[in-house]
Amino acid sequence: MQCTSMKRPLETPLAQGLPATVPFVGPEALERQRGVKFAARLGANESVFGPSPNVIDAICAEAGGAWMYGDPESHDLRHALAGALGIAADEVVVGEGIDALLGYLVRLHVGPGDVVVTSDGAYPTFNYHVAGFGGSLVKVPYIDDREDPASLLAAAREHGAKLIYLANPDNPMGSWHDAGAIEAMIADLPEGCLLVLDEAYVEFAPAGAVPGIDVSDPRVVRMRTFSKAYGLAGMRVGYAFGEREVIRGFEKIRNHFGMSRVSQAAALAALADGAWVENVRARVEAARTRIGEIALANGLTPLPSATNFVTIDCGAGPEFARAVLDGLVSEGIFVRMPFASPGNRCIRISAGEAEDLDRLAEAIPKVLVEMRGG
Amino acid sequence: MQCTSMKRPLETPLAQGLPATVPFVGPEALERQRGVKFAARLGANESVFGPSPNVIDAICAEAGGAWMYGDPESHDLRHALAGALGIAADEVVVGEGIDALLGYLVRLHVGPGDVVVTSDGAYPTFNYHVAGFGGSLVKVPYIDDREDPASLLAAAREHGAKLIYLANPDNPMGSWHDAGAIEAMIADLPEGCLLVLDEAYVEFAPAGAVPGIDVSDPRVVRMRTFSKAYGLAGMRVGYAFGEREVIRGFEKIRNHFGMSRVSQAAALAALADGAWVENVRARVEAARTRIGEIALANGLTPLPSATNFVTIDCGAGPEFARAVLDGLVSEGIFVRMPFASPGNRCIRISAGEAEDLDRLAEAIPKVLVEMRGG
Repeated sequence: MQCTSMKRPLETPLAQGLPATVPFVGPEALERQRGVKFAARLGANESVFGPSPNVIDAICAEAGGAWMYGDPESHDLRHALAGALGIAADEVVVGEGIDALLGYLVRLHVGPGDVVVTSDGAYPTFNYHVAGFGGSLVKVPYIDDREDPASLLAAAREHGAKLIYLANPDNPMGSWHDAGAIEAMIADLPEGCLLVLDEAYVEFAPAGAVPGIDVSDPRVVRMRTFSKAYGLAGMRVGYAFGEREVIRGFEKIRNHFGMSRVSQAAALAALADGAWVENVRARVEAARTRIGEIALANGLTPLPSATNFVTIDCGAGPEFARAVLDGLVSEGIFVRMPFASPGNRCIRISAGEAEDLDRLAEAIPKVLVEMRGG
Repeated sequence: MQCTSMKRPLETPLAQGLPATVPFVGPEALERQRGVKFAARLGANESVFGPSPNVIDAICAEAGGAWMYGDPESHDLRHALAGALGIAADEVVVGEGIDALLGYLVRLHVGPGDVVVTSDGAYPTFNYHVAGFGGSLVKVPYIDDREDPASLLAAAREHGAKLIYLANPDNPMGSWHDAGAIEAMIADLPEGCLLVLDEAYVEFAPAGAVPGIDVSDPRVVRMRTFSKAYGLAGMRVGYAFGEREVIRGFEKIRNHFGMSRVSQAAALAALADGAWVENVRARVEAARTRIGEIALANGLTPLPSATNFVTIDCGAGPEFARAVLDGLVSEGIFVRMPFASPGNRCIRISAGEAEDLDRLAEAIPKVLVEMRGG
């Protein structure tokens, strides 16, 4: 083979300027670093309560059919979702988790230099996609540990933003707005601006926090997932819904055969098992109460939560919170913390089984004592 | 809610210009149209022989853990693949099927107006990605039902192409080049041009058709999949390998948490079961022989194949081939055909079980008789 022209082909200028990065380090990577498995996995807001037994059965039943590509239209799942939402099947699109759907939506709407508005400390994977398509991020602060619609709107208006990102309920703070606040925000969107309403945690929200569904409005795309309440983070199924023509945009760019056949079957079975979600909701509520009690017993302050996690104010700065987090990790408890100020005075703990929370209850005082001693 | 500003936000100019399309209509959509299931599913080059029993066990064993996100580094699978390929783990990246990896690679290397060279009639999903990122496709004809390295190189040189796409063995023709021809092509790549070598069917290729692995060369990215020989099309696991820095590019844009946990476990089990792939290879070879015999018995000409399908020359123009295909579909046999001339004088039939091919043997003469009668 000649070796005269072995120069590396150049990426696009946009790609050359991007860092090789990962929005989150996975718990498995931490386990490999530590050389030991976590005793409690409470860091990724997964549902430790698992998928429903019916869903496990559906996965096993479909395993033998894994040789077949999944239906690229996700027809059955899409129709079931549309039925549950009270909308038409072409007003919803199924994708490989909200992460993939956020990527598609950003790709459709954001080109180099286009402005996107989000909150400082909100979902990093969304920011990753915006940067990845050359968009320019404008971040506004959380106010009282909530994303602030007025600040988001003002920034969008000032900068002519293409997209606003808002999670309701919010991750990583667990806070929420009521439906009226979201509806008022929508009514006040500047022209040409699309609201990306991330509702990953919607199944845990109080009823009053969820706006009614109005798919006649082309300025809002809402996203939900099977990764949280349904316990299927490992299957990669999310969905977006909104006005027909906006949803149709996904058909221009999405990976049509990207949806696993087994995952489609799992999600369909999950959707049919409403009792399981009720059960999970109750267990999450109990776990939130317990996490709050553990925090208070240790002089820490749990924040109110409309999600499957509790964000705990450690009462000092980010270094202190980071030290608590590191201490918990070295005690074998996987937790995470908000990335940005002022949220990064907190740690974030996902709902766990009783034995997970027993471990937490044991570890936190130990960690705090060691920190004082250190 | 105010309705004064309900205008649809605009997509990017690039996205506005894209059609809502799908590279392939799925068999499920055809079944819904026909109102009846296919009796034989021989159109998507899936492996009717299924995944190995060990893999089915692995899927069921992991189902209960589906509440956990998959390892974003696909560490275990990536290391196992690297071991099998004799390369380092950071010289391979795992993705949601070759389709997703092609999309990522195009995104990294192709911007608006950049030229990409492929063969007229080669993989449409690759073309979809190129169009989706604003690339300009230059297509050269197949010669003797094979993709032609010399034409591809000449076009790449003439147009200053960023990428060349070549599948070896080829889909949809089933043809192949020997390793020497591919190596000579690589040696002759114009500067700045990256060869995307799609090896989806590599497990079915004669040994002499597969170039040795040289990940020191940054001008070639090779892609392989668990969708064909391993019988896992429905799980969405592909991988790309090549020079470390080129592979590192994927980390800038890929959906890190996009890999299903259950799919990672399935692929890992599949990779460990070499005997199953041997078994599938033998059954594919027997099926190819049988499909060839059926074709010949009906006055049609099977083309040589290094894949898990046989492309059959129907001996007349595309209308004739289309009529044969439509006839088979209405007999309940899902098959496809090449999209472009001169391949579209053919139909393409995936390897099937004996009973699938019995149905084929029954249907073809019936279809041909009906066509003559019509």
